[in-house]
This record gives sequence, C-alpha cells and structure tokens, in this order.
Amino acid sequence: MALPVDKFREECGVFGIFGHDSATAHVALGLHALQHRGQEGAGIVSFDGKQFNAERSLGLVGDHFNDPKVIAQLRGRSAIGHVRYATTGGTTLRNVQPLFAEFDFGGLAIAHNGNLTNAGALKRELVSRGCIFQSTTDTEAIVHLIATAREPRAMVPPATASPGVVLRIIEALKQLVGTYSLVAMTQNFMLGARDPYGVRPLVLGELDGALILASETCALDILGARFVRDIDPGEIVIIDESGLKSLKPFLPVSPKFCVFEYVYFARPDSIVEGTNVYEVRQRIGAELAREAPADADMVVPVPDSGVPAAIGYAHAAGLPFELGIIRNHYVGRTFIEPAAQIRHLGVKLKHNANRATITGKRVILVDDSIVRGTTSVKIVDMVRNAGAKEVHMRVASPPTTNSCFYGVDTPMREDLLASSRTIEEMRKYIGVDSLSFISLDGLYRATGQQARNPKTPQFCDACFSGEYPIALTDFLSGDQPAQLSLLSERG
Amino acid sequence: MALPVDKFREECGVFGIFGHDSATAHVALGLHALQHRGQEGAGIVSFDGKQFNAERSLGLVGDHFNDPKVIAQLRGRSAIGHVRYATTGGTTLRNVQPLFAEFDFGGLAIAHNGNLTNAGALKRELVSRGCIFQSTTDTEAIVHLIATAREPRAMVPPATASPGVVLRIIEALKQLVGTYSLVAMTQNFMLGARDPYGVRPLVLGELDGALILASETCALDILGARFVRDIDPGEIVIIDESGLKSLKPFLPVSPKFCVFEYVYFARPDSIVEGTNVYEVRQRIGAELAREAPADADMVVPVPDSGVPAAIGYAHAAGLPFELGIIRNHYVGRTFIEPAAQIRHLGVKLKHNANRATITGKRVILVDDSIVRGTTSVKIVDMVRNAGAKEVHMRVASPPTTNSCFYGVDTPMREDLLASSRTIEEMRKYIGVDSLSFISLDGLYRATGQQARNPKTPQFCDACFSGEYPIALTDFLSGDQPAQLSLLSERG
Amino acid sequence: MALPVDKFREECGVFGIFGHDSATAHVALGLHALQHRGQEGAGIVSFDGKQFNAERSLGLVGDHFNDPKVIAQLRGRSAIGHVRYATTGGTTLRNVQPLFAEFDFGGLAIAHNGNLTNAGALKRELVSRGCIFQSTTDTEAIVHLIATAREPRAMVPPATASPGVVLRIIEALKQLVGTYSLVAMTQNFMLGARDPYGVRPLVLGELDGALILASETCALDILGARFVRDIDPGEIVIIDESGLKSLKPFLPVSPKFCVFEYVYFARPDSIVEGTNVYEVRQRIGAELAREAPADADMVVPVPDSGVPAAIGYAHAAGLPFELGIIRNHYVGRTFIEPAAQIRHLGVKLKHNANRATITGKRVILVDDSIVRGTTSVKIVDMVRNAGAKEVHMRVASPPTTNSCFYGVDTPMREDLLASSRTIEEMRKYIGVDSLSFISLDGLYRATGQQARNPKTPQFCDACFSGEYPIALTDFLSGDQPAQLSLLSERG
Amino acid sequence: MALPVDKFREECGVFGIFGHDSATAHVALGLHALQHRGQEGAGIVSFDGKQFNAERSLGLVGDHFNDPKVIAQLRGRSAIGHVRYATTGGTTLRNVQPLFAEFDFGGLAIAHNGNLTNAGALKRELVSRGCIFQSTTDTEAIVHLIATAREPRAMVPPATASPGVVLRIIEALKQLVGTYSLVAMTQNFMLGARDPYGVRPLVLGELDGALILASETCALDILGARFVRDIDPGEIVIIDESGLKSLKPFLPVSPKFCVFEYVYFARPDSIVEGTNVYEVRQRIGAELAREAPADADMVVPVPDSGVPAAIGYAHAAGLPFELGIIRNHYVGRTFIEPAAQIRHLGVKLKHNANRATITGKRVILVDDSIVRGTTSVKIVDMVRNAGAKEVHMRVASPPTTNSCFYGVDTPMREDLLASSRTIEEMRKYIGVDSLSFISLDGLYRATGQQARNPKTPQFCDACFSGEYPIALTDFLSGDQPAQLSLLSERG
Repeated sequence: MALPVDKFREECGVFGIFGHDSATAHVALGLHALQHRGQEGAGIVSFDGKQFNAERSLGLVGDHFNDPKVIAQLRGRSAIGHVRYATTGGTTLRNVQPLFAEFDFGGLAIAHNGNLTNAGALKRELVSRGCIFQSTTDTEAIVHLIATAREPRAMVPPATASPGVVLRIIEALKQLVGTYSLVAMTQNFMLGARDPYGVRPLVLGELDGALILASETCALDILGARFVRDIDPGEIVIIDESGLKSLKPFLPVSPKFCVFEYVYFARPDSIVEGTNVYEVRQRIGAELAREAPADADMVVPVPDSGVPAAIGYAHAAGLPFELGIIRNHYVGRTFIEPAAQIRHLGVKLKHNANRATITGKRVILVDDSIVRGTTSVKIVDMVRNAGAKEVHMRVASPPTTNSCFYGVDTPMREDLLASSRTIEEMRKYIGVDSLSFISLDGLYRATGQQARNPKTPQFCDACFSGEYPIALTDFLSGDQPAQLSLLSERG
Repeated sequence: MALPVDKFREECGVFGIFGHDSATAHVALGLHALQHRGQEGAGIVSFDGKQFNAERSLGLVGDHFNDPKVIAQLRGRSAIGHVRYATTGGTTLRNVQPLFAEFDFGGLAIAHNGNLTNAGALKRELVSRGCIFQSTTDTEAIVHLIATAREPRAMVPPATASPGVVLRIIEALKQLVGTYSLVAMTQNFMLGARDPYGVRPLVLGELDGALILASETCALDILGARFVRDIDPGEIVIIDESGLKSLKPFLPVSPKFCVFEYVYFARPDSIVEGTNVYEVRQRIGAELAREAPADADMVVPVPDSGVPAAIGYAHAAGLPFELGIIRNHYVGRTFIEPAAQIRHLGVKLKHNANRATITGKRVILVDDSIVRGTTSVKIVDMVRNAGAKEVHMRVASPPTTNSCFYGVDTPMREDLLASSRTIEEMRKYIGVDSLSFISLDGLYRATGQQARNPKTPQFCDACFSGEYPIALTDFLSGDQPAQLSLLSERG
Repeated sequence: MALPVDKFREECGVFGIFGHDSATAHVALGLHALQHRGQEGAGIVSFDGKQFNAERSLGLVGDHFNDPKVIAQLRGRSAIGHVRYATTGGTTLRNVQPLFAEFDFGGLAIAHNGNLTNAGALKRELVSRGCIFQSTTDTEAIVHLIATAREPRAMVPPATASPGVVLRIIEALKQLVGTYSLVAMTQNFMLGARDPYGVRPLVLGELDGALILASETCALDILGARFVRDIDPGEIVIIDESGLKSLKPFLPVSPKFCVFEYVYFARPDSIVEGTNVYEVRQRIGAELAREAPADADMVVPVPDSGVPAAIGYAHAAGLPFELGIIRNHYVGRTFIEPAAQIRHLGVKLKHNANRATITGKRVILVDDSIVRGTTSVKIVDMVRNAGAKEVHMRVASPPTTNSCFYGVDTPMREDLLASSRTIEEMRKYIGVDSLSFISLDGLYRATGQQARNPKTPQFCDACFSGEYPIALTDFLSGDQPAQLSLLSERG
Repeated sequence: MALPVDKFREECGVFGIFGHDSATAHVALGLHALQHRGQEGAGIVSFDGKQFNAERSLGLVGDHFNDPKVIAQLRGRSAIGHVRYATTGGTTLRNVQPLFAEFDFGGLAIAHNGNLTNAGALKRELVSRGCIFQSTTDTEAIVHLIATAREPRAMVPPATASPGVVLRIIEALKQLVGTYSLVAMTQNFMLGARDPYGVRPLVLGELDGALILASETCALDILGARFVRDIDPGEIVIIDESGLKSLKPFLPVSPKFCVFEYVYFARPDSIVEGTNVYEVRQRIGAELAREAPADADMVVPVPDSGVPAAIGYAHAAGLPFELGIIRNHYVGRTFIEPAAQIRHLGVKLKHNANRATITGKRVILVDDSIVRGTTSVKIVDMVRNAGAKEVHMRVASPPTTNSCFYGVDTPMREDLLASSRTIEEMRKYIGVDSLSFISLDGLYRATGQQARNPKTPQFCDACFSGEYPIALTDFLSGDQPAQLSLLSERG
C-alpha cells in the first residue's frame, strides 16, 4: 500500500546556474533543497562548451545525483535541473525533465514548473503539422513550438546574444495558455520565464558572480547564494556572458500568484513574493485563533505541515503548544499491505499519538488543509483512541472546493471533501467536536493584504473560490489533455 | 560524504510476537516503529510449526519488508525481528540479526540489543573449544554458549515447556558480562531476557491474545497492541502456548537503566520504565530554563531531537518557541562531495536557518546533546550567518565526557568535546554567546527522581559521570573485542 | 577488458507477427532466434486494439523478455520487435528500437535493419523544418519523413486499408538512400519493406493463420512456423485483417544481396535468398580446398564460425576434421583486465588449444574471415604454443579490404588488415606457414552462381571489391552522419 | 520455464594458487575455465599476510569477478576459489564456497569438490557436541571436524610448517566417507587433498614459480601455466614458502576415478588421469561405430557434447559428419513460459534442426548420454519434423541405470530412463529407428584399458553398473542427509 497521499502536491521545481565552475554540483544541491516540490524524478542537463550532457533518474535527487561520477560526467559551467511528481499512470524516465532537443540553431534544454491548459489543443495542431511527441508531458509542446516557430520582427535589444533564438522562444511562449515558471539553456545563454500571471514562483540569485534561477529561495540558501529578486510575472530574463537582460514581451495582466504556495507547497524557510512562508503560516494560525477559538487544554499540530500554524494559534490563544502526535522519520514510500486487524495502519506508519500527553485532554488539532478528508478521519480516530477528551480541528486554509489545473496534482472535484459538504457535515465525517477553517479574507490578511479584493483577487485562489483566472482551454473544449497517449511504456 | 553523525547512536531494537496469524507482518511493522534504534539492517525469523524462515537485509525495514511476497514467505504464528546500526568496518549481511542456529534440541533464533563487555574473552575461550564463529557480532557468543552448555540442576517450574532448553539458555546468560535485552525463539516458545542491571529497555504487550516483546512501547502503538508492563531487570520470560512464565535466576542488583534513553534514544511517544519520554524531555527543558536562563527573544530547537526540550524551555522561560531552523525531510544517507565553496554543506543538506525569523534576534538554541561538537559549530555558524544577533546554546543533557560500552555507538573518549574542555572552552569552540548544560541532578529530577543518589545512582549515567556500573572485561584486559576478525568480506 | 571483437557485426534483426493470440510471446522467441544479429538491446511494441504497449531493454532478449509479467503487459494480437548492436559511443535505451511515434492518423512503430547513407543530409533538412530528433539512430529520419509527408497521388490498390497512411510511408521511403529491411505496425496493419537492392534479408512466414515477417528463417523454425517466401527487393507488403497485399512502388534495379550474410552474419540453419547458409559455407570450404590445398595432418576450425567451412574443406581434401580448439561456453561479455603475465588472455577466455590433439601435427586452421587480424595472431600463437608443427590458415572469404556502410559494424578501412597488405605480408603478420583466402569467384560459385558477373555483380560485395552499389551520400559530402548528436546521455 | 536439464551435472570445481603477485586474478581466470563444473555460484578467498579476504556471489564467475575493484580488494599472494552447482532447494549465498572459519590456530578457507556420504551422521554427532552449522553444505562438517580435532601423534615430516594444523586436518579427513578433491588455505600454507579412491580429479600446475591446484588442466592452460602432475588418490600436498610436501596418510585402496568425467563432465581439452578427454570421446565414437553400425547418410552430433564422439563415429564408419542441428549461442538460463502452441520450445531455445541438410536423409544422431530421455524425445521429434527419413541414435555411454552419490547431481533412480526399460522400450519411447549404447567394455577400451576388470573395476562406474565402491552411509541408514536444515533462507 502506498502511503495515503491526502495533500495537494506541487508538481515541479526548477533550478539553473550560468557560468560557475561547479555548475552541476550546485544544481544537484539546489534540486535537493527543492525536493519537496517533486519526488518522482530528477534530471540535470549541463553544457560544456561543445556538448550537452544529460542525466535523468526516477527517485530522489540524493538517490542518484549523490554519485561524484555522475556529477563529474555532467561537465560544463552552465546547467539546469528539474524535480517532478508523478501524475497518474506509468512513471517513465521519458517524462523526467529537463527535456532536450536539437534545432537548426543548436541544442536547447528546458525545465518547466506549471501546467499548460491548452497543451491538448497545441499537441493536436502540432502533430497535424508533422511533429512527433516523445514524452507525455505538456512541456514538450513548448519545444515543438520553438522548433516550428518563425522568427518574428525584432523586439529584443540588439545587444542580446542570439536574438533570433530568443525571438523564436518568445514566439512559442506567446502561444501558451496556462502557467509556467521555466528555465531553459542553449549553447549561448540561460533563459528564465514566468507566465504573465506569475502563478508559480521563480527567483534570481547570485553566487561567486554566477547567476542562478530557482523555484524558491531555500535553494539559494543551501549554496550560500545571495537572493537577488523575484522574476516578475510575464518577465523573461536572458543570462549570458555579458550579464542579465530582462524582457517583458507580454501584455500586462493582474498577477495571480498561487496562494496555496503559502499554505503548503513552499518550504517554510523560503521567501516567496517578498514574504517569508513560515511567518505567513504563523499568522494564519493567529488569524484562525481569532476567527475560531476553542475552549481547550493544548494545541497539537498534525506534523510537520501543521506546525507553524499551530505555533501561531497556540501563541495567539495563550494555550500550550504540544507535540501530541509524533512523526516517524524513517517512512519509506510504500509499506506492507495492512494486516486487516490494524486500524488505520497508513497514518500509523508515519504518525503516532503521544498518549501520555493527550490522554484526558481537550485538544485543538491544527492541520494545513483538508483534501479528501480520509487522513483526517484516521488521525482524529488515533488521537481519540489515545484518550483525548475533546478534539477540535482547526484548518489553516479555507475549504478546498475545486481542483487545480495550473501545475498541481489535486483530486477530481467530486473527491474533495469540501466540494459537496457543509462544515457541519464535514465535522461529523471527520469525527471532531468542532471544525473550523480560516476564512479566505483571513488567509489574505495573513499574507499581508488588507482583504481579498473580490473583483480582482490578488492571488489565484481557484481551489478555494472556483474562480479560475486563466482559461482552461483543453478542459472546456472536452479535448484530451496532452498527457494521454497511444503508448504505454515502462522504464 | 556521509552526513555528519554527531550523535550517540543506539545500536539495536528487538521485537517478537508469539501465536498470531499475522506474526511476520506485525514484526515488520514493529521494527518499522523501532527504526530509530537501528538503520543499518533488519531481519526477521519466523517459525511455521515445521521450519524456521529467515530473511535479512541491509537498509531500512521498509526498503525490504514492505514486499508482500517477502512477508508471505516468512510463514508461521511466531516471529522475532531485529534492527541494527553499523558499528565500524564493513557492513555485512552476516551480522544482521536475528542469528539462527540448529542445536541437538532443534533450532533457535536470537535478537539482541545491548553489548557484551566480555565478548572477546568468551570468544577466545569458545574458539579454543572448537567453536566456529560466522559473524563478528558479540551476540554469536551467546549462541555458542547455549550450544555447549550442559543442563544444570533444575530451577525452573516443572510446568515450563522444554525445561532443559530453558536451563541451557540461563546457563549461557549467566556467563555474560554486559548489557542485553534479548528476544529468542525456539520451536516451542519465545523467550525475553533483560540483563540484571536492565540497562536497555524491553516491554511486554498483547494483541488479539498474542504476547509481544518489544524494545519500546511505540512498537506496540503502531499495531494497536496493549502495553502490559516492562520486563524487569534480570527477568526472563518464557512465552508458549500455555501463556507466560517469569523467572528471575540472577542475583538481584541495583538497576541501572540508561538515562540517555530519555535524553535521545527512545522515541518521544514511548513510555520507558513507566515514564513518557516526551514529558521527561519537556521537563529537562524546563529545568534548563531555571538552571540557565538567558535574556533572549526566542527559543529555537535544533530539529528534531531538540524540539521537546525547547518547548519546555520556552514555556518555562515565557519566551516564544519558533522554528528558526527548518529541516529538509528528503535527506538520503549520503550526498555529493561538497563543492569546496559551500560552507557547512553537511548541515545544510538537512537544515536551513529560517533567516526571516531569526535575523536581528537574540536566539536560544536548544539541542539534546553535544558529542563531538562539529555539528554544533556548523549550526551556530549558519544561524549567525542568517543574522541572529546573539546565540545562546542550551543543552538538554550534561556534558558527555565518556564513551559508552553498553550497546551504544559513541566516539572514542578523546573525540568527545566535553572530555577535555571547560564549559568556557566549549563555548568559544562552538562560537556562542553563552553555553549551558543541564546538571546531572537536573536531569535526574526531570525523570522524576528527587536527585541523583551519588552512592548508588538510579541510572547508568557513565557517559556523563564516568562511573561504569558493569565490568568492562575486554577493555580492561586489553583483549581484542569480539568484533575483530581475520576475515574481511563484503555483501 | 571487453572481449576482442575482430569480426564484422550485423547491426540488427527484425520480427513482426500480425493477428496471433500470443503475439508478443512469439516475437520474443523470434528475437531470441535472431540474437546473433544484435546483442546490445531488444525491444517489442504490441498493439492491443486500443493502445500500443512498448518495452525496451539493454542486453539479451532472454535477460528481460523471459519474464512472463513483461510479456503479459505487452497485450495484443500484433507485435513487432528488434534486436540491435551498439555502434560507437554511449549505449542508450533511447536508441533501442522499435521506435514509436504518434501521428495525426494514429500511432506507428517501426523496426529497421540496415543503414541509411543519406541520414545526415535528411536529418539536417528535417531539423531545419522544425523536426526534433530524440534518438541518434538513422531510423528516426524515416519516422519524421512519414510525419511530414504529404499524401501523393494514389498508386495503391483501392482495397488496401488506410491507403493514405501507406502512401505517406511510401513517400517517405522514396527519400531514403541506403539499405533497409523494415517492419512497421499501425493500428490497422503491419508493413514490411525491403530496399530496392534487397541488401538485407527479410522473409515471410505463417503460423496458425497469422503472418510473420522476420530477418531469417531460423526465427520461423523456433516457433514451428512455415516459411512462405522471401520478401522481394523493393517490395512492400501490407498485412491486415484481409490478408497480404504486395506493392512494388520503386523503379526496379539489379538486386545486391549482401554476400557476407552467407559468409558470417546469417545463422547456418537459415535459408536466405533460397539457399541454405550451412551448405554455402561447406561449399566455400570445398572450393577453398581445391583453390588452396595444403599438405597437412588435420583440418581444425576456429570455433564456431569456421566449423562448416572446415567440414567442407576436410571432406574435399580427404583430411580428418578435428576439434583442435575448444570453446568455453560460459563467456560473458567482459572480463578482468589481463594480468600482464597472461599471453593472449582475450582469446583464452573463449578458446583453448587442444594440446593433445595438435601437438606435433601439421594443422590447417579454417576461419570465416580476417578483419583486423589481431585475433588470428593470438589464435595462431596459441596453436603453435600447443605444439603444432605447421599452421596453414585458410579463410572462407576473400580479403576484406573495405568498410561497409550498409548496416554492418566494420572497422575503418585503414584498420582492415587486408586493406594495405599483400597476402605474403599478412601471412608473416599472422605467423602462419601458409595463408590463402577463397577467391571472389570461388565465393560466388559456392552460393550457386557460375561466377561473379564483373559488370553487374549478383551480390553486394563492396567489403571485398570496393564497388559500392548504393550512393554513400553522407560520406561523400563530408556531412556528419546522423549518429552524431549534441547530447551525451546515459541510461 | 528453466531450460530442461537432462544431463548429469558435476557439482563443483576448485582452484588455488600459492605465492603469486596476481593470485586472485589468476584464481578468477582458473574458475572461469572450470565454469562447466558449476554455474550456480563462485567464491574466492585470498590471504594478504594479515587478513583473509572473501567474496562470494551467485551466478557465473564472469558476472562478478570481472570487476577490477572486486579483484583488487582480494589482496594477497595466495588465494583459493570454487564454482558450484545448485543441488535442490533454495540457492543461497551461504552455501557458496570457499567456506571460511577461524580456529585457535588462525583462519582456514576450504573449497571442496565431491560429496560426503556420511555427512548426515557427522553433522548429527557434531551438533550434539555443540557445533553450530551455518550452511547446508556437507563441506561444513569438515570444518567442524578440524575445529574439534585433537592433534594425533606425529606422522608428518618435521620440516613441515604448522605440523599441528596439518595433523588436525588429516585427523578430520580420516573421519570422512565419500569423495573429495579439496583445496584449503591457512595463514601459512595451501593444502590439496584427494580422497583415497580419487573419484574426482585434482591436478598440480606451476606458473612463475607459484604452485597451483586445479580440478582440470584446462584451468592451467588459460593462465599459460605448466601442468606438473595429477595429485594421487589419497595424497595430501602441503604447499608453503619452502615448496611442496606430499603425504599419503590413508590406507591404500584401489583407485576409482569417475569414468563419467571422460563421458561428459571434464572439458574435452583437459588431460585427466593422463589421458586427453577429447581423444577418449573420439575413441568412444569409433568403438560405437564398430559395436553398432547403421546404414545411413550422415552422422549428426547433438551439440555440443556429442561432437567429439560423432567425429569419431563418422570417421570410423566412413560417413560424412554434418552439423544437422545448430546451436543458439545466446541461451540464457531461463525463458518465457512456452506459449502452448509451440512444440518442444525447450530444445528449440537452444537448438534448431538444419532442415536443408537433413531432409530426406538417414541420420545417425550421436549424443553423450541419455538421462531422463525427455530431451532426446524432443530432439528426435525436431529432427524428424525437419524431414529426416530415418533417425538412428547412438549414445556415447552405457545406459545410466543408477544415481550418483559422489558429488554429481543426478535424478532419482526411478527417473532414469534406463533404470527400468529395455533398449527396445527406450527406442520406442525416444522414437528412433534404432538405438544403441556403447558397451561398458567398449567405454573402458576407449579410455585405454583392455577391458573392464569385473572384480575390481578400474573406474567408478556405479551409474552404469550399480556397483558403488564407497559406502553410502547416510543413505543406507535412512539418515537425513546433511543438506536438510530447519532453516529456510533466501539471499
């Protein structure tokens, strides 16, 4: 039995460095720091002045890229890398990024965080033009768009290296609908791009004079690199020997950064869009304590993602913060089919209620979110079996009522507990004495906003509000999404 | 580079169950819950009424024993298992327990937590009698002692099954010096034994009428099993179809449970010797706050082992508890040779300072212990680089001045930071503004004692006090310890 | 050290079956029988009515496709497969065929034996049109040509299923220069094609009403399938539910079957172009005995490829045929670096002179060919060290003076021993008392021809004559062959 | 389905070298040359002056010992090695030899070819004395006998190094019943021993001044080593820095070398007991032609073991020798479950009838032996399906009517085709037009004897005659043989 995954899951992380003697070693470490954004596979492509060198593997970064021989073969002073989650169906090495292709202008490697909502339509169009897809990732559509793009009229500063290539990439990006924070590398330059809405994060860093692009600042910290700034929504940066140039070739739109990055995806030590994630989560806890107090003896986080909000809640409520649930740090990814007798084995492989601490107590459980609710049921049951007198659940995000199509692995809408149930129905299902979620306004306040702007929300909060800021082309037209393929392949 | 291990490490965990239809599946889960006691290798031996079935593997329990086919092959209603750490030298499957041997009375499997301090002397004597050792573990000496034991005069209740075999095992145990909590299994019964000093833990549980022996109660919780009681120091229990019988064949001595189990080894949710570990650790933090207050803005644990004491300290000191250091949950066991430029890569693979939280702040860092001090230096440096204005370190155990010879992997005495330095010298070495350790009396108070009895300490605290309660036979005589062998073998 | 490969090596074998309940199992067995045509990697693609299922692996067919689970996953009543040799550079799974691509008309899998001599020119042209290559095989050019082909005016019998798709494939094939015997499969039909010169073999078979395409008849024998006929040079067959249709869309040219298939590539039990290979080889031996007799005591083959010619030689010469060299059947593909002291370890891993048989004797050694000559030197030295009084070498092919560019892995011309040496120089180099090669006319006679037609040779014998019947487009223009790539990748 | 094994199988090969700088590399090569004597597992133990270094692995020698790192770790100037077959039950690394044990005098490694017929009795006795067995091999009994042996009165030349150790080994060997050709190594010397009957071969060689012990001379040839002489039946040789010493501590008996070594086990290029195996096999063929002529068109061997006898038969009969059956050289050890439709897939994975050669012909098939007969049935059927007009089978050994207990893996007596059938019944079963076996006298003549001495046969020919020269202690007493164990273990 795979461990129950009852979370939204970020689908990717990207990292690139240009002009460093230990380029690949730094990419490997950066990807390790971004591992929470994708654990299915990892890949690195470097360029050594003559040739691109690629290595991809299923599993964790440290499972494969901890081998000095692997690192040594990925020669060169520039390199980009990628970590990714499995979506559905067969996990195959073909889908592990960065993708690489040879064009008439030379080679190009690309790593993409996000999801194209018109990938199906693009693929159908490209196949009819004679393009052959080798992976089932939406990212490959970008590669074919670049391959078949004609150079448009100039719009790039003349000083830019390889202006024709850059123009073709821009031409390709303009045809995309959806979200992307991507890093690409040619023989001459590294490129970073964020979609006009800036849904996924992308930051710029610097180490020993070399420039770095990464999904989150925690990937800079591990290297001792300096955080320079966020890449802006709709910005394209070109990094070459002459330095960095910034382009903004898209019509400006109101940014829609993913608010769930603050709730769960980003690492707490990262600074995203100017704000520290840990502090936002603490403030969510504090807001929640104000919005939904409870008469209780202690605040207990569901580890580890519930910890910052629980600290914030406990402090604001003046209640003790206690580790009433202990985490087993040696959880692998799969384990034995549960012997039928063992209740809720799934959560017990990872967590154990700390009976001595919670028995006879009124406990406020703080979790980051409720998705299907199946894990919550088991955790609450475990806590009650350990003797808790009352269990009050407080959730550090609003009810998740809608699926995400922007680069996050979420269940179908009908599988989301909140999609069709009242709070009271959910309370009964989960089996708690009280249940409260933070309000959407409370969440926005915790991020530093005054309140949610109902006309033009400052974030993408579609999973809570159902308001999708970017067209869901494939899904509305009934097109097959790009991931479907005639080919089933392993290995 | 392997991740820096700058901790004392428990060397083993044991688990056994007698008379359950899913015996092996439960042993696998129990070992998974005991994984913190040993991560080098795991093994299970079951008995199916006719034959013993064995499986051993290097690595984590979940790496191998998550395979339903492996579990299915380990047929039978009784099974015992073991997790272990590497000590020095080549890690080899031969040393993974349980050990198994065939005797004139049939088969016997044995799993041992602890360390025999006369193993070298025993081995030399046994080899001269014609015994052939196949592993380099001290445990094998017990097996040969049983094989060559003569049955002594009866002392066992006549109702016991296989009284002759039990007597031979007791005869063997009487020749041991050192520590052992062990579980053994023959064709007729399961046996649990704890050395007269009771240095290592061993508990009795019950599930569906089947009796269980385990190193810690957390291994009962994962199964939903009931905790019955601790096995007493010097007690031998025989579990067979007729139930449990208890023997106490040794001269009684004053118990010396290992106090470091409370400090670091045991899981916080376990109840050892009647006391919950998490609560002891919180009380240590509270004692420490009283003994060594500091004028500071926040209390930050070194995750994860420093968390309970930090919570206790923060509460007692009335200071905020903050996650100023974030842990990467995807740490594998090895990673890339550090590119020379990366300062303190080792700790950064696992931890990152949460800059936004600690910058400009006066921080109290709480760690469970300081062993070599090398990790502390790196963590403090990382915290300072993240902008902490002051760093005060508080350690939840007294200075560790002496090595352990009782089943714990510790550095040589000269490598222990505290073995030859004053507190002030250590403070300078680690680079903190102030440094305090809890007192030995404070530690004893946190466990529920009034104070340490200086004549007959209630615990074994040799690593702090240098007072070794059990003879170090091999080490005093200059004998080669049992681990040394003429054979070097891999795989 | 890899075992010395001092042979020409066929680069591929293909197999396909249409409309059989055990399609994949039969492909696996057919590929096993064709293993001598390629040992680097094997792949199978099946079609199950809805989806194509693919599996590729490095190594022998039996290393991977002996797993019933693997076979079971390759569902469907039609399947094609491929075995291949490594050429130069990194062996990578990406290059293991069948290739698969999705087009606007659906999926297509293709397996190719042969080599395109204009692959470099085609690839450059295709890339400039926006095609993206994923492998470094020349075969991928065919796929892109099909993808970008426009449907030409009809030339296909109206009754053919999917006439448009067939026309596009023909359009693509018309742009190829070089050699190909290929098998392809779409959702509706299986296709077999042989280049107009028919350089590589391809045969048609039948089993339980299902039609089969295979490189050699030995792949029919293993299944108990019936040999129907050879596919003609320039013929394209379309096999679908309605049966087989034959097209001949190319201008007819004089066929040029590869004469080296008779000398070494094909298995002796195969019937190629109407003639049994074993009998041709025996007749070569007999011709050789007439052309180049020797006064000797026995005829000894260099096993195993020299055996049939040696039998023919011995019989014609009236001399005993003796196993003077014994083969070790357990040769893996690599072995230990030779300890410096061991003379000619390479050949000894595989062969040993049978001292008792040859000592004091005048030996005629029969080998199939001499390529670099390095192995011959070692074998002759081994035979002399075992006491042979005289060694006369007889070679069952003419001197190989030229490289092959038509799907065979051969050394560069300058590395061919015969490219720059007289027979006498070669004799001295190899260290034999006499050396003779069969004449080109003798070789033709052994195949059943009267003699070689000097104006229009009945076979391709470019490796002996230097007369290349098909244009070497890439090589003459100095173009980079298609195999070169900007990407270096493992795994 | 595993390939049908319808042969007697030698169970082991041994090799040792004393005093050579590349000791381990030479052992690995020697074992590779002895691979035909055991393909299940291989092991090497070296001694480097301080420590013994061991490495064992399942599979072929070249699968594991082709790694220069593995060789490099097996440091030292002396080393011994072993190859073995699986017998029944789980193949486990524990049973791969050489065995190693530490005694009061130091370490000893031992590699054994043969089988002890009193191993069960010995094991029972040793276990009752407190010995603990770790493997299920009979060889381990030897180790425990040495461990528990007392030094007897001197009988060894005073100049011998370590006389006490040698005496203890002799004392142990004296308690053995059965067959053994063994090589052992201590810190001071290498020892070779052959049982008094000399059933299994053992030869002495020399290379660069270093002495070598090996099962067959082909293992000397691969190294370029010189064959010195056979070790005599009942001889023990001690090789140390001072050279070789020979002991003959047993009462002399009439030697009984295994005649089946000539028929099938030994490699044809080996010289065993003074006679070349290939020539014996040719003479068997010639004898067979005289004893059992047939009116036919050609002689066809069942490859490869039937080849030498077929050459001898063809020459004596004046008939052509033809490769009417072709062998696939890429046979792995297992393959796909036969699709039900494929007749006799098992033999076809390995062999194919050469239809063009044999169709319409009267064929004499020559095989080395008939064991169960199942393979013969399939081969004859395949040959008939390929069009042979008549099939006459000639077998190069007498009917195998009895099992072997002396170190050979044979079926139970009742599974031997000849154990309960007349020649005519066997002829019908196999489906041939005529069937003849060589006579026992004919076989003896082919080895160079005048005839078989009916009172004291010059060889062990128990498998043909049922006359077992050495007591079958375990089997007569109904004792469990030593291989049975209470433990079932994998890996």
